[in-house]
Amino acid sequence: MAVGLQDFPVIPAIKGIRIGVAEAGIKKPNKKDLVVFELCEGASVVGVFTQNAFCAAPVRVCQKHLVSAKTRYLLINTGNANAGTGRSGLDAALKTCDALADAVGVSSEAILPFSTGVIGEPLPVDKIVAAIPSAVANLSGDNWKSAGLGIMTTDTLPKGAVRTFHFEGVAYTVAGISKGAGMIRPNMATMLGYVCSDIAMDADVLQSILAKTVNQSFNRITIDSDTSTNDSCIAVATGLAGNKKIHSADEPLALAFIAAFTEVMQALAHAIVRDGEGATKFVTVEVIGAAIEEDATKTAFEIAHSPLVKTALFASDPNWGRILAVVGRAGVEGLDVDNVQLHINGVEIARNGGRSPDYLEEQGKQAMTPEEIHIVLDLGMGNQSDTVWTTDFSHEYVTINAEYRT
Amino acid sequence: MAVGLQDFPVIPAIKGIRIGVAEAGIKKPNKKDLVVFELCEGASVVGVFTQNAFCAAPVRVCQKHLVSAKTRYLLINTGNANAGTGRSGLDAALKTCDALADAVGVSSEAILPFSTGVIGEPLPVDKIVAAIPSAVANLSGDNWKSAGLGIMTTDTLPKGAVRTFHFEGVAYTVAGISKGAGMIRPNMATMLGYVCSDIAMDADVLQSILAKTVNQSFNRITIDSDTSTNDSCIAVATGLAGNKKIHSADEPLALAFIAAFTEVMQALAHAIVRDGEGATKFVTVEVIGAAIEEDATKTAFEIAHSPLVKTALFASDPNWGRILAVVGRAGVEGLDVDNVQLHINGVEIARNGGRSPDYLEEQGKQAMTPEEIHIVLDLGMGNQSDTVWTTDFSHEYVTINAEYRT
Repeated sequence: MAVGLQDFPVIPAIKGIRIGVAEAGIKKPNKKDLVVFELCEGASVVGVFTQNAFCAAPVRVCQKHLVSAKTRYLLINTGNANAGTGRSGLDAALKTCDALADAVGVSSEAILPFSTGVIGEPLPVDKIVAAIPSAVANLSGDNWKSAGLGIMTTDTLPKGAVRTFHFEGVAYTVAGISKGAGMIRPNMATMLGYVCSDIAMDADVLQSILAKTVNQSFNRITIDSDTSTNDSCIAVATGLAGNKKIHSADEPLALAFIAAFTEVMQALAHAIVRDGEGATKFVTVEVIGAAIEEDATKTAFEIAHSPLVKTALFASDPNWGRILAVVGRAGVEGLDVDNVQLHINGVEIARNGGRSPDYLEEQGKQAMTPEEIHIVLDLGMGNQSDTVWTTDFSHEYVTINAEYRT
Repeated sequence: MAVGLQDFPVIPAIKGIRIGVAEAGIKKPNKKDLVVFELCEGASVVGVFTQNAFCAAPVRVCQKHLVSAKTRYLLINTGNANAGTGRSGLDAALKTCDALADAVGVSSEAILPFSTGVIGEPLPVDKIVAAIPSAVANLSGDNWKSAGLGIMTTDTLPKGAVRTFHFEGVAYTVAGISKGAGMIRPNMATMLGYVCSDIAMDADVLQSILAKTVNQSFNRITIDSDTSTNDSCIAVATGLAGNKKIHSADEPLALAFIAAFTEVMQALAHAIVRDGEGATKFVTVEVIGAAIEEDATKTAFEIAHSPLVKTALFASDPNWGRILAVVGRAGVEGLDVDNVQLHINGVEIARNGGRSPDYLEEQGKQAMTPEEIHIVLDLGMGNQSDTVWTTDFSHEYVTINAEYRT
């Protein structure tokens, strides 16, 4: 029941990137569950990862490999998260890297491993190793949609985004895929996101752009407030578009890239929310009028996490009292409730901390009916703001998460 | 579907307390929805209230009246929370106090008003005022169960607890009622709780005991992480049992009272969890081995709030990876995940941050089957601990909260 999620876009080949997909039978037979990205020599590769202390084995390996060698391959499996697996989980992740390294003739450190799926089960190394040759044989520039399908878990649809732009006569492409539908409250990155471009850019600059952009995209979405152990987001710049390598995020070309990159990152983050487990609404929570940005951010997340607000959204019930109750417990220092205003899809519902004098319940019901809901909460304290995207809380969410392992 | 909630106990009359109940038709006809407590002259009356900035009008009036006069009556309505109602909500609460004050011949400040129910609707003052005479005519020492029924909203059963104890030949009674099933994550007190005793005790001493005990009972339960705007907990000591008035919480009689009082407070708090909206499990989350108590408290609450943990509890699924993932994001400074242990109903599931070597999935499934689940999470960092009580997250929760206003 994805909400307004568009078909997977046509993503052209990006110079320097080839993708191979295979069926390893990790959790289910006849499902694409293994994806290999091949990145050309000289590509800048950077990443951000989960802040969860129980980060998964592949996340630890990625962080080590990123600093010890130039990355040439990404190896992604779905169906098993290789998290909560201790020392043997690290060994398992390394073994899969070794197998791919042998198959393609690079060092094991040139490979970044990623896993997503059930937590706490041993990674089926043998199945992955056995499927690596078919994934390598499948390498091609045109496999973006297969890759989107190959990293899905409880996602109902593959998620991709692409933007092209021109600068001084040269064409550039930015494209990516993402996955994730539950255990989504990223803290530095989402479940899995991969964004590639043919632009030439210093890794340091790309890292700073990724870190900033993730705070306007993956780090501003939440489905159920649970931060995954496997969140990883990777950005790649292959450098084959033809530009002089970018050394500063302030260069005019860098600014054009940031605009396209931000659009792709936001589209991929929104796609995760639109496909949120059990989602029937796509909800934008915008908090304005804060004294400091942190107040806007935390208030927006508190609204987005409240089970009572989320079930009211599911019911299309303009139960604005629940939203104000959340604002009241969000811990905003110096909040004067008499200055709080609330709009939903353009309808003024609360003014001066109580129901708007002109508000009619019928208007609220109409405002809550669409699939796309835009909540604007004005704290009335200053001019800082922030926006978070989320879903409602439905029967389907309970069903999915009560039955996920069975 | 209350979980192991026992029948309302037989509560004897407490000297100095009379209770009257009436049907005011506030939200539905033919439902007890108005309760009056009459407290004898000289009773010590103290309270703790919600910390939500959007606290309801009656909470503000209570806080004012408690300091400006000796309390003689409590006036409680269900069906309407009189919250988010601004200035006119305050006027409405005061009008109901005035009406009761006139009927019984005390000052309006001697009355504490309480409301619970839908947020944001104007309080139907006329209906309440019209029903006050029947509530007053109904005053009797034996109406505890009617009072328990009269303060229910989405509760499925009335909640009461009583303990008697003897000290130096004198018998003492501590009894109370509570209500609440959703929007439960009290912060200083729960939705509504009233505990009365015939003991003679200074108000200051009673206040300090209440503040301490609430942190071992109402402030350690959570159903859906949403702090109500109306949380109020009142303790009354009528002073008619015959003891010399207690002036210190360290007196031997005070210690005996605290033991009984704590049992009543915990029983009332647990009753709210057992009757939690859609609850099919009563879950005790005990975090031990913390370096500081705050780490234990916040980790326990994070586990208790996680939608993924709660849906796994609903499914009786020993999905321990979800619990460890929550521990990893709980923000415990210096956590070494390799020292974390997890037991569920006595079965060791995780050791050294991963699955226990001897653990079999079958054992986990058996451990998760009962209605009463006891999770013990050892952080392996020190000797501080805390316990929180909660419920699972079921289809019924979504149904109740998506349909509450219709």
